[in-house]
Amino acid sequence: MQTFSQFLKIIENFVSEQRFWGKNTSLYEPIEYMFSLPAKRVRPALMLLGYQLFSKDYQKALPIAFAYEAFHNFTLIHDDIMDQAPLRRGFPTIHIKYNTNAGILSGDALLINVYEYIRKHTPSEKLDKVLECFNKMAIEVCEGQQMDMEFEKAQVVSLTDYLEMIQFKTAVLLGASLSTGAILADASDADTEFCYELGTNLGMAFQMQDDYLDVWGDQNQTGKQKAGDIINGKKSAPYILALQVLPEYEKQTLINIYNTDKPQQEEKIKIVLGLFEQAGAQQAIRDLKNVYHSKTVQLLEHISAPDENKKHLHDLIELLLDRNV
Amino acid sequence: MQTFSQFLKIIENFVSEQRFWGKNTSLYEPIEYMFSLPAKRVRPALMLLGYQLFSKDYQKALPIAFAYEAFHNFTLIHDDIMDQAPLRRGFPTIHIKYNTNAGILSGDALLINVYEYIRKHTPSEKLDKVLECFNKMAIEVCEGQQMDMEFEKAQVVSLTDYLEMIQFKTAVLLGASLSTGAILADASDADTEFCYELGTNLGMAFQMQDDYLDVWGDQNQTGKQKAGDIINGKKSAPYILALQVLPEYEKQTLINIYNTDKPQQEEKIKIVLGLFEQAGAQQAIRDLKNVYHSKTVQLLEHISAPDENKKHLHDLIELLLDRNV
Repeated sequence: MQTFSQFLKIIENFVSEQRFWGKNTSLYEPIEYMFSLPAKRVRPALMLLGYQLFSKDYQKALPIAFAYEAFHNFTLIHDDIMDQAPLRRGFPTIHIKYNTNAGILSGDALLINVYEYIRKHTPSEKLDKVLECFNKMAIEVCEGQQMDMEFEKAQVVSLTDYLEMIQFKTAVLLGASLSTGAILADASDADTEFCYELGTNLGMAFQMQDDYLDVWGDQNQTGKQKAGDIINGKKSAPYILALQVLPEYEKQTLINIYNTDKPQQEEKIKIVLGLFEQAGAQQAIRDLKNVYHSKTVQLLEHISAPDENKKHLHDLIELLLDRNV
Repeated sequence: MQTFSQFLKIIENFVSEQRFWGKNTSLYEPIEYMFSLPAKRVRPALMLLGYQLFSKDYQKALPIAFAYEAFHNFTLIHDDIMDQAPLRRGFPTIHIKYNTNAGILSGDALLINVYEYIRKHTPSEKLDKVLECFNKMAIEVCEGQQMDMEFEKAQVVSLTDYLEMIQFKTAVLLGASLSTGAILADASDADTEFCYELGTNLGMAFQMQDDYLDVWGDQNQTGKQKAGDIINGKKSAPYILALQVLPEYEKQTLINIYNTDKPQQEEKIKIVLGLFEQAGAQQAIRDLKNVYHSKTVQLLEHISAPDENKKHLHDLIELLLDRNV
């Protein structure tokens, strides 16, 4: 039985051994660069932990786990172009280091490679099911990115829409990773579905926590700019939750200051934090995160697998989700 | 037995009935727009003609033929961004009509939809083979686009490199269309391979003809700007063939005038045409085109199918390839 951190080493080793098709260096160099950046590898690790719930020979799932990490990288390459992001994981994004065309085309080549990994390494009797799960997730990720871009332009976003957006953009990929591990390990349909729900709820809880820590987290712990979401006017959960409960006047104040370009940063943060406090946003987002967290733990209990097999997945959930939030 | 033009109507009808997944209009509107533009539908028609060589119930291949047309559209959407093309089929390109992000993301969503069409409509025992053929072709199309973009920046391109580029960028998609029709109709491996080669050679001959007609064609017939490739300094076959045979001084003259930005157009065309004539480029490209044309016809003879089944594919070849070039 492998722990999460053992799986991480196995995945890093597998990633470092992969070479992409074809002789055209210019097409593949940006892909190799992307894989060389430091990364958490949460998705492939989840797939292997999902496999390990039901079967021991996790090696069979390794190329598909890698394909999921590759798909994640594909989305990052194209998203970074669309979001005009200069940095990814602390390093220049591909469209900055190379150019936009390299980002578009290498991204396309990577997505096709993802499908070829899945085709080549999935037992033929499972190929249809694995692809069905993958395609559904992949199209939802595109829809999530589309919603996210539209929200950028909107001043007000409903909580329902926001939760759907992060479910599609972020959470379903964790759900599909875990459930594809289950499919490959011959889990029952019911257990496969539990895995999908578990991964998705884990993703939702993690995103809530991320939004929370951005505002109220310890900067030394997160390693990110304090209150970056407030400074950048990002419509994250605290803002959306606050808008739901604030009286009309305070609501308009929050909308105005949050969406204003470059006011005095310290002043903006202070006012916004005050309004968040008035709205009880800190507790509201904690509550929301805990709902998803609890669901995750409940779903793990529902899965028909020996407790010893569940242990490492349980450890990962506790590692990703901070009980103090 | 359906003729090419009957298949075209069947395909147009099928195209008009398709609706894409999901509720997010902004994501799917550009895709619907792309399909609404006038198009030749050569690739899906080839697939159905390939199917019809071996079996009658072409309806089974229709969704996969559509998927190939959709893949072609995906490549056009992303290529148009990379090439900064303002028009496609006489209408604004997606990145112009909408924006670049819409082009990137809708293209991605379309490619994922292509895979879902293939998964959903391919009999499970053939899915691996159909996907293997598709993935190999798709990655080559990316490599062809990469080569094409690199050639834009180079002054001299070898004939070998140029032929490989158009094989990858254009021809293999016709080869894969025809051979996937054969796979779906239970053709033997040998016949499937003949179909792949036939389609690829047809694509090469067609591209040679296209390059030829741009320089020496009748503008009323082509509907394109006369000598557009010369004006734009496009490294097409006549230029590359001429460089192969011209003496050093004339070679340098051709390189200089061909790659100069905006010289007097009439003067440029006149000098370039003179150098093409000196090099015998017109006859050389005719010969090259005829080699591919002859291979196409020979390959059709090699295929083990009744002559009556081959008739409509033969007619299409003669329709696409002008005997006067």
